[in-house]
Amino acid sequence: MALSFTLLATDGQARRGRLTTPHGPVETPIFMPVGTAATVKGLTPAQLLDLDAHLILANTYHLALRPGSELIADLGGLHRFMHWSRPILTDSGGYQVFSLAEKRDISDAGVRFRSHIDGRPLELTPERAIAIQEQLGADIIMCLDECPSSVDAEPAIQEAMRRTLQWAERCRAAQRRSDQALFGIVQGGLNPAWRIACAEALIKLDFPGYALGGFSVGEPTAQMLAVLDEAAAALPTDKPRYLMGVGTPADLIEGVARGIDLFDCVLPTRNGRNAQAFTASGTVKLRNAGHRTDPSPLDPECGCYTCQHFSRAYLHHLFSAGEMLGPTLVSLHNIAFYLGLMGQLRHAIEAGRFDAVRAEWLTKLGGADRGTADHNKGGWHPDAAAP
Amino acid sequence: MALSFTLLATDGQARRGRLTTPHGPVETPIFMPVGTAATVKGLTPAQLLDLDAHLILANTYHLALRPGSELIADLGGLHRFMHWSRPILTDSGGYQVFSLAEKRDISDAGVRFRSHIDGRPLELTPERAIAIQEQLGADIIMCLDECPSSVDAEPAIQEAMRRTLQWAERCRAAQRRSDQALFGIVQGGLNPAWRIACAEALIKLDFPGYALGGFSVGEPTAQMLAVLDEAAAALPTDKPRYLMGVGTPADLIEGVARGIDLFDCVLPTRNGRNAQAFTASGTVKLRNAGHRTDPSPLDPECGCYTCQHFSRAYLHHLFSAGEMLGPTLVSLHNIAFYLGLMGQLRHAIEAGRFDAVRAEWLTKLGGADRGTADHNKGGWHPDAAAP
Repeated sequence: MALSFTLLATDGQARRGRLTTPHGPVETPIFMPVGTAATVKGLTPAQLLDLDAHLILANTYHLALRPGSELIADLGGLHRFMHWSRPILTDSGGYQVFSLAEKRDISDAGVRFRSHIDGRPLELTPERAIAIQEQLGADIIMCLDECPSSVDAEPAIQEAMRRTLQWAERCRAAQRRSDQALFGIVQGGLNPAWRIACAEALIKLDFPGYALGGFSVGEPTAQMLAVLDEAAAALPTDKPRYLMGVGTPADLIEGVARGIDLFDCVLPTRNGRNAQAFTASGTVKLRNAGHRTDPSPLDPECGCYTCQHFSRAYLHHLFSAGEMLGPTLVSLHNIAFYLGLMGQLRHAIEAGRFDAVRAEWLTKLGGADRGTADHNKGGWHPDAAAP
Repeated sequence: MALSFTLLATDGQARRGRLTTPHGPVETPIFMPVGTAATVKGLTPAQLLDLDAHLILANTYHLALRPGSELIADLGGLHRFMHWSRPILTDSGGYQVFSLAEKRDISDAGVRFRSHIDGRPLELTPERAIAIQEQLGADIIMCLDECPSSVDAEPAIQEAMRRTLQWAERCRAAQRRSDQALFGIVQGGLNPAWRIACAEALIKLDFPGYALGGFSVGEPTAQMLAVLDEAAAALPTDKPRYLMGVGTPADLIEGVARGIDLFDCVLPTRNGRNAQAFTASGTVKLRNAGHRTDPSPLDPECGCYTCQHFSRAYLHHLFSAGEMLGPTLVSLHNIAFYLGLMGQLRHAIEAGRFDAVRAEWLTKLGGADRGTADHNKGGWHPDAAAP
């Protein structure tokens, strides 16, 4: 058994659970820092351990292109390659093929495309996506899906859904390793009926976990949440649910409220590199001149290394001077903030206080920039696309 | 008393000593990692503590320009600003004015120049150099000197020497804080007689420590060492000696052999950012394709975090992918290598085995690229000049 999931408590739709993986337990709901190219940008694995990150995500597309999944397998697998002994989830590479690769040619067989790094022609099929992920060796792996934007036209979304289901079946059949949990991905755009139909078809294949894909690519948040309400309800309660590539702190709270267990997003690290910090009272832009002389910590409520030891003035200085330590310290804080928020939500569910905690947080966050601008502009995974 | 220096052992000219500063002890001979803009590039203070760095260097010129020494003073001084509670040494800014600033106009009064950041006109005088360093609050501060290249024409070197002596006297007179040790700087190019004359004139001013400036700017190593032989011998034995901006691992060994106690150099961090690692068997260029599949550690003899947990293949991958973690991990290793080398030299002096250890090391290093190419190309301090 690659994965077991235990539901420890519920509070409304919100769920408090525990995943057990070959690389240890994961308390849910949880946020996964994104380690696109086998590194969470700017942080050492030791720093991630200090932050008590558990599950992290790596991108199959990037790793398959560079350094290659075969090499990683030869070197003992992804955990050993990047020195992360806790659980890892890899995506299928599908989203990146659709968002980063050039000259895509999609058919039922798979996707032909050109590498965004060196232009060489490549092909990704459901079988190949599984083979690559088996070489990487993550604890949780994903089916190849076709990823239309949720704001695409209906025929494109329906076609993508049909193909995603066909590919899910082929991924299931292609799986050889028994120590990896393969999740199915629900597509269907912003049409709740299609989402439900897609979920029901996947459930027949009996995956150990289910993901909701194709969100956070430009649709209004309210619309995403309305679809989530119905799509999450269509999924089995005894399996983990993963909302791919979402989102802002408020999105995470709303996702948990709708029964989501797993989240990933590049916002904490990407915004961190751009001097934007998440705090309980909204985002802080450290390049702003107002921080130049500010002796106070980034977030007085935060216990992370950055907030315990450095002033906003110092962080402002690091970004002014173009010093690497700026991105590192703010990424570190942002991940601490995301992980801390999820910890509070877990605790709130256990205590039966989820609604109150949710309302408190949304009030705090709602009073300030929720970070949605960046979120909607950039989509999710292609963290490594920018140089 | 800002600083005391105890000579614990000697072995030939090599010295094993201990500096006591307001921020704790420093075992000598020691290498100082360079933290130009109040950060050792790519590393957190916590990582520097893990490496057991003690004394670090910061650049007055850079900090005076950005964020400004007055601001740092308002924020509690440099130690607090950058969260480094161990000793710090600041240079005077002179070298950077001569190597980085634009439109220099030197007179006995001081140097007028334009900022290399924004072009605004500035002036550095001996009095101003001390005032700035008193605002920064390092444990060891330096006199303003005129820094000709050691390969400049003789009249220029003699003039610089005369002015350096005059400025040293003014720096001494300008000093107000009693908790900082002000070092004099010996100039005199590659002429041993001038070096000796400069040293003797400075000794009359009775500084708590002496530096040798103007090396490592293009002269052949053998010539530098020949001058060092005589210049170091002219300095009092009961005061610490600092060879500014030098150098490669072999240079450090040869400097210690000539009685030098303190060294600083950007090589470990600058080369680290460029994927070049120092090891006991010479430099390793991690971008070389040969490392792509290499499962072995960077330096099998090294106990640092990088060498204990990551393969050359992973480091090669990080640089190929342009990931920040590459510069961080290799800078970390390079500093560990430099600090470890100095630790071995201290131990060898205590054990009366310095000549044997020196010969062993030079044989190991001599068989490979000593890293002199980069060293001669770039000079020393202007680590932050490149964007």
